[in-house]
Amino acid sequence: MEIFCAVNLNQAEKKYLLQKVEKSLVHFQSEITNDPLSYFLNCDICFGNVPRSWIERSKKLRWLQLESVGYESYFTLKNKNLRITNLKGFFSVPVAESAISGILSLLRGTNNLCLLKESKKWEGSNLRPFLRTLEGSKVLILGAGGIGQQLKKLLIPFNCRISFYDKYNQQAQFSRKEELNHIIPDSDIVIGCLPESPETVHLLNEERLNMLKPSAIVVNVGRGSLIDEEVLVQKLMNRDIAGAVLDVTSIEPLPSDHLLWNCPNTILSQHTAGGFDKEIIGKIDIFLQNLEHYIKNEPLINVIK
Amino acid sequence: MEIFCAVNLNQAEKKYLLQKVEKSLVHFQSEITNDPLSYFLNCDICFGNVPRSWIERSKKLRWLQLESVGYESYFTLKNKNLRITNLKGFFSVPVAESAISGILSLLRGTNNLCLLKESKKWEGSNLRPFLRTLEGSKVLILGAGGIGQQLKKLLIPFNCRISFYDKYNQQAQFSRKEELNHIIPDSDIVIGCLPESPETVHLLNEERLNMLKPSAIVVNVGRGSLIDEEVLVQKLMNRDIAGAVLDVTSIEPLPSDHLLWNCPNTILSQHTAGGFDKEIIGKIDIFLQNLEHYIKNEPLINVIK
Repeated sequence: MEIFCAVNLNQAEKKYLLQKVEKSLVHFQSEITNDPLSYFLNCDICFGNVPRSWIERSKKLRWLQLESVGYESYFTLKNKNLRITNLKGFFSVPVAESAISGILSLLRGTNNLCLLKESKKWEGSNLRPFLRTLEGSKVLILGAGGIGQQLKKLLIPFNCRISFYDKYNQQAQFSRKEELNHIIPDSDIVIGCLPESPETVHLLNEERLNMLKPSAIVVNVGRGSLIDEEVLVQKLMNRDIAGAVLDVTSIEPLPSDHLLWNCPNTILSQHTAGGFDKEIIGKIDIFLQNLEHYIKNEPLINVIK
Repeated sequence: MEIFCAVNLNQAEKKYLLQKVEKSLVHFQSEITNDPLSYFLNCDICFGNVPRSWIERSKKLRWLQLESVGYESYFTLKNKNLRITNLKGFFSVPVAESAISGILSLLRGTNNLCLLKESKKWEGSNLRPFLRTLEGSKVLILGAGGIGQQLKKLLIPFNCRISFYDKYNQQAQFSRKEELNHIIPDSDIVIGCLPESPETVHLLNEERLNMLKPSAIVVNVGRGSLIDEEVLVQKLMNRDIAGAVLDVTSIEPLPSDHLLWNCPNTILSQHTAGGFDKEIIGKIDIFLQNLEHYIKNEPLINVIK
C-alpha cells in the first residue's frame, strides 16, 4: 500500500495523519521537490485532487479520495478498478452559514455598517428605513442536495417559504426549467447550490435574471457558471435587483479590474464559504475512515464511481 | 379627544395615519413651529416618546403610546389616570436577525470580505483556516424576553446549546448573578438583551469579561450600560476575545475619537438593529389598534402601567 497525499497539510496536520498511518507509506506532495508524478504513479491510493491527466497515466491507482464535493473533471475517467470517493455533505454546514451570513448582511445592512466603521461615521437611525428582514421571505433554492437541505433547515425559523428546483432530486417540487419562469418572478431570494453540468450552465440566463423583482437577492454558492455574470453585473450596477451574494464566480481569483468588485450591494466571499478552522482535520478524518474500509475491503463512504 | 403625535412621520405615513383618524384631532409635533409643549398639554393622547418633564406637567394626558420597548424613564411617573403602553415584542424579529447577522459575519469572515471587496483584494483560500461555524456553539442569552426567545428560535437549527439568564423571567434556567460565573467561562457566545435597571448596569463587569474564552464573542442588543465598555475595548484591542457585535453603546452617537471604532473584529450596528422598512407603518398600526381599544374603553395592548 502506497499513499500519495496531494492535500496541503501543515506540520500539525501531518502529525495527525501519521498517528494512524505509518510514515513510510505516505508520500506528501508538498515534500517532493522533484517529479511528483513519478511518486504518484507508484501509489494505489491518492488523497486529494491531482490533475486528471495524472490519473489517466496511472496503472496502479485503486482509490482516489477527493478533497472536494465537486467531481466534474473526474467523472468520465476510464481507469480500471479505480474507485473515487468525494466529500459529499462535508461543506453543507459552513456553506449554508456563509450564504445566510451574506443574505442577512445585505438585508440588515451589516456590510454597509462595516464600511461605516472604517470611516468612523455614525449614520444611526437614518439607516433604519433601508433595512429589511429575512422573516417570511420566499426563497427559491436551485439544488436540493446537502447544502440546499441545510439552507432549508436554517431558514425555517425565519418563517421563509422555501421551494426547491432540482432536475434529479426527488425532494424538489420543481424539476422542469419552464417551471422556473413562474417561480422566479415571485421569489425574494434565489440561491444557487447546483453542481456544474451542461444543464446548469447559465441556468440563470438573461431571460431569467430579467424576471427577478427589484427587491430580489441572488445568491450563488454552487458553481460560477450557473449565472450569466455579464448580465448580473449590469443588473447590480443599475440597481435592477437588490443585491447578490457570490461565493463562486466564472473566474477565480477575480482579476482586480473585474466589474464585480465595483457592484453595489454585493458580497464576494471569494470561494471561502466551505472553509472552517477544522476543515483539514475533518478531511483527514474522512480519509482515515475510508482507509479503514479500504484495508478491510469494506464498501467506501461517498463513492461517486 | 386630542392626539399629540411625537413620532416623526413622512407625508406617506401621515396620510396612512389620517385614513383612520380625523385630521383636526391630531397635532404633529414636526409641524408645530412654536411652543409644542403648549399643544401637548392640551392633549389626552400622546403617540411617541416625549420628554418625561412634559408628562409631569400634563393634567390632561390619559394615554401615552410609546414608540419603544424600553420605558425606563417613564416607569416612575405619578400622573393620575395615565396609562402607558409600549411596543413589547415589536422589534424582536429585526433585532434577533441583526444579532445573528453580526455573529455570522464575525464567524464566517463576512465583515472582512466586505473590506477586501473595497480594496479589490482576493485572499480566497488563505482565509479559510480562520473561519468558524456557528454550528454547535454554546450560547448564553442574558434576558429571556421577546428578543431572547426569537434568538433561541433562530439558533436552534444551528444546533446551538442555549441557556438563559434572567432574574425575573421564569423561562430562564439561571437567575442568580453567581451562576453567571460558572456559565460565562463555558460560553462561546454571550448575548445581552436585557432592559436597563440597577441590576443590569455593568452586569458584564471586568471580572466577568475576564472569564470569557479567547474564542468567545460578546453581543449586546439591549442597553449599552450592560457592559463595562472600557474593559471590553481593552479585551478587543488585545484580542483576548474573538470579537463583539454591539448595537448599543454607552454613548450614542459614538464620537469619532471613540476607541470602539478602532477595535478589531467588532461590528458596530449603530442602534439600527430594531430598524426595518415597515417600522413606522408597523408602529402606526399598533397605535391605531390601541386607539380603537381606547375609544371603546377596552383594555389596551402592552400596558406597562
